[in-house]
Amino acid sequence: MTGWPENVGITALEIYFPYCYVDQTELEQNDGVSAGKYTVGLGQDKMGFCSDREDINSLCLTVVQNLIRRTGISFHDIGRLEVGTETVIDKSKSTKSVLMQLFTESGNTDIEGVDTTNACYGGTSALLNAVNWVESSSWDGRYALVVAADIAVYASGAARPTGGAGAIAMLVAPNAPLAFERGLRSSHMEHAYDFYKPDLQSEYPVVDGKLSIQCYLGAVDKCYTRYCAKYNAKSGERFTVESGDAFLFHSPYGRLVQKSFARVMFNDFLEDPSPDYSQKYAGLEPFRDLKREDTYFNRDVEKAFLTASDSEFKAKTKPSLLIPNQVGNMYTPSLYSGLVSLLCSRTAAELTDRRIVLFSYGSGFAATMFSLRVSSDMCEGSPLVKLLGDLSDVIPRLEARKKVHPTEFAKSMQLREDTHHLAPYTPVSTTDDMFPGTWYLTQVDDKHRRTYAYTSLVANQHNTLNTVADAHQLKTAARNASAHQHMQTS
Amino acid sequence: MTGWPENVGITALEIYFPYCYVDQTELEQNDGVSAGKYTVGLGQDKMGFCSDREDINSLCLTVVQNLIRRTGISFHDIGRLEVGTETVIDKSKSTKSVLMQLFTESGNTDIEGVDTTNACYGGTSALLNAVNWVESSSWDGRYALVVAADIAVYASGAARPTGGAGAIAMLVAPNAPLAFERGLRSSHMEHAYDFYKPDLQSEYPVVDGKLSIQCYLGAVDKCYTRYCAKYNAKSGERFTVESGDAFLFHSPYGRLVQKSFARVMFNDFLEDPSPDYSQKYAGLEPFRDLKREDTYFNRDVEKAFLTASDSEFKAKTKPSLLIPNQVGNMYTPSLYSGLVSLLCSRTAAELTDRRIVLFSYGSGFAATMFSLRVSSDMCEGSPLVKLLGDLSDVIPRLEARKKVHPTEFAKSMQLREDTHHLAPYTPVSTTDDMFPGTWYLTQVDDKHRRTYAYTSLVANQHNTLNTVADAHQLKTAARNASAHQHMQTS
Repeated sequence: MTGWPENVGITALEIYFPYCYVDQTELEQNDGVSAGKYTVGLGQDKMGFCSDREDINSLCLTVVQNLIRRTGISFHDIGRLEVGTETVIDKSKSTKSVLMQLFTESGNTDIEGVDTTNACYGGTSALLNAVNWVESSSWDGRYALVVAADIAVYASGAARPTGGAGAIAMLVAPNAPLAFERGLRSSHMEHAYDFYKPDLQSEYPVVDGKLSIQCYLGAVDKCYTRYCAKYNAKSGERFTVESGDAFLFHSPYGRLVQKSFARVMFNDFLEDPSPDYSQKYAGLEPFRDLKREDTYFNRDVEKAFLTASDSEFKAKTKPSLLIPNQVGNMYTPSLYSGLVSLLCSRTAAELTDRRIVLFSYGSGFAATMFSLRVSSDMCEGSPLVKLLGDLSDVIPRLEARKKVHPTEFAKSMQLREDTHHLAPYTPVSTTDDMFPGTWYLTQVDDKHRRTYAYTSLVANQHNTLNTVADAHQLKTAARNASAHQHMQTS
Repeated sequence: MTGWPENVGITALEIYFPYCYVDQTELEQNDGVSAGKYTVGLGQDKMGFCSDREDINSLCLTVVQNLIRRTGISFHDIGRLEVGTETVIDKSKSTKSVLMQLFTESGNTDIEGVDTTNACYGGTSALLNAVNWVESSSWDGRYALVVAADIAVYASGAARPTGGAGAIAMLVAPNAPLAFERGLRSSHMEHAYDFYKPDLQSEYPVVDGKLSIQCYLGAVDKCYTRYCAKYNAKSGERFTVESGDAFLFHSPYGRLVQKSFARVMFNDFLEDPSPDYSQKYAGLEPFRDLKREDTYFNRDVEKAFLTASDSEFKAKTKPSLLIPNQVGNMYTPSLYSGLVSLLCSRTAAELTDRRIVLFSYGSGFAATMFSLRVSSDMCEGSPLVKLLGDLSDVIPRLEARKKVHPTEFAKSMQLREDTHHLAPYTPVSTTDDMFPGTWYLTQVDDKHRRTYAYTSLVANQHNTLNTVADAHQLKTAARNASAHQHMQTS
């Protein structure tokens, strides 16, 4: 089989997170919990959140438009567009169909793909579908565009600090700087009620916290075991933590990711035909005969392998936790915000030819482990250098955000809770607290139809256009931001 | 590019529809509307419906288990499973994950794919994803299993007779008796609020009837024009109605399908460089200069082309309307119930080497036209003959259903309306009115977790098992149906 294009993978990435955040230390104080409960216990420092001005459609409109503008590609260049999300505001109409408004001016409507859902796994499902499309006979040479976005909110209480919000857009094509490694993809899917959203009227999930951790760690075990077996079948060699240069995990909160990396090393240890107890596995001999499935809540195992894996964790996983730590759990974009974090922390030279292993998990549940190989071309103007260059504003954007006091945050959450399902409804929150070029909800009419506008690329100017098409038009709009027309919705 | 496996497509089909139906003539009388309003005006004779015993999960459990049993394949043989549906009962947890219960005994959990949604288009999206997977480097030789299922219900009133319910399962593999024609796939996707479900608490959609017809017919025009262009680019020849042996359409109701086929001929007419006004297009000259987009509600055009296309419609489309006419709109399975209808109406010899053109439409909206080529191997034991043999009980099953009086039907609809979102809830409807081997809901607990059991393959025996795995186990269960254990849900 030699017909597939070479090095199919991610050729551009765009991330969007909200302008406002709440500080987790302040939240600890405000909630009257012990200091460090959220920051150390969960490993979370800041949490982004959306007012009633943003919904799943606006997040996706924003990230797609920003990706198109930044990469300079045309709306004509896209042949597939799929959205992964669990922020469902319509049981039938896809967010993909809403995004087609951006394509109106281009006239390009021959674009396959709709929405895909399984908790935080939807983005990965969309990404794998995109890669498959590029490798299939139906690929017509155009880019696949993958969007993952969610608004993660919890009822007030212990779970609330594990929220977050954001969106990722990824372009998929051959000759990509982040290429999928063929044959190295393993999944584990199972039925569980660990985290789910059966109350359709509410934005909040039902969570069985303990079961959720067990399912997640169990899926790490299963996927890693299968990934290693596939690697072995392909290369004849044993895969261990040393075989990968970075290990990224879906991040509900940072502490679980650290435990997951320790879990990978625990798996290595159990599979090692002759463990080195003098060095690498010093003091771990008592755990040698344990069964994986008996250890999900074994504190001794957890502590021992957290310690044993600490230096590798800092080198191979911690850099990926920047955005998850600063924005919170974005659900479907979480893993890919980890990828963006890693890319923002490294130069092209530090990344070139490296293997990045990714673990995606969505409750219910669905999990996949796969790996990306970074291109070895780090010349000026190479796809890798361009991809990294396009991410150069991520850290400045993180730092430019606005801190909001916990009481204001709580009010904003209450407003969402009271109004997110109403029709008709006109959002009341200010649009001043948004990044330039952010789409926002202007109105929900009596038939639940939603209209949107977007903040100007020039500060303090807002654009509400009939349709917004390509980057050129957007730039024109930014220059002529006084024109106020509403985008048609039907 | 010669690396893709040959003739990737549908190698087996299974259909499930409810045991109970309401007669549309009786419904006309009961609703006090003019005779023929539903049967002639909509083109619908019977409508299947589900009691509170069935939900989207149970429909999918049933159709997958029946497919496995009938084809005799093992749960081990499946490497991908994706569900297309717009019957959302959880915003996060996929129906795919619920189906993983069927795989428990096999231990096969390395199965990609989750759920995909865009109104009635979800099944097509899942099918195209499956075909892409088989053609990709990630294909590992196993089958892809595509499931499309929905329960279509409307508030009492004019739209109610356009309901229906059902499920389709399709196995996708190379060397298929129904192979996708490469390069002949065209889509048109656009933003519209024609039919959508923004009231998450309700099972009923919001419908803009006129806009919906305009969007549907517009999508027929766009997809057909693009399909013809791709055909022309590939073969150098002009595609017309004569180039296809069967034309199948998503069927909200039969009359719209007939209008759509007439629309295809209208497109042929407009594109014909030298229309034959003496024969084929006799009397149609006045319509030559019309623009497509001005004619969606032009009664003269509609009537003229319905008449002109009538004999071709009867030959190439009408056979596909059997199940849509007898069961109603199944939403995502609708188009594929048309495919089953066609296959049930023909012998292998009548089908061999024929081209079947399919048009899929989902509101919001997403539409794709593609074509399948029927295998030329009609020998005893060939995949085509096996596929047709596996469908031999469809017509007998349709005829074995139970007719329910409109007042009982209305009560059942009211029960769904009152209870479909409740937790805890124990369904009250009888399980006697179900086909053998049908999964049904036994309970929704206070945390919204759902448990299921299934009716015996032997009449009047019910099985409620811990887990139900492969066909062997199912047969054993049917023999020992007195054992009552409940399937675990968490």
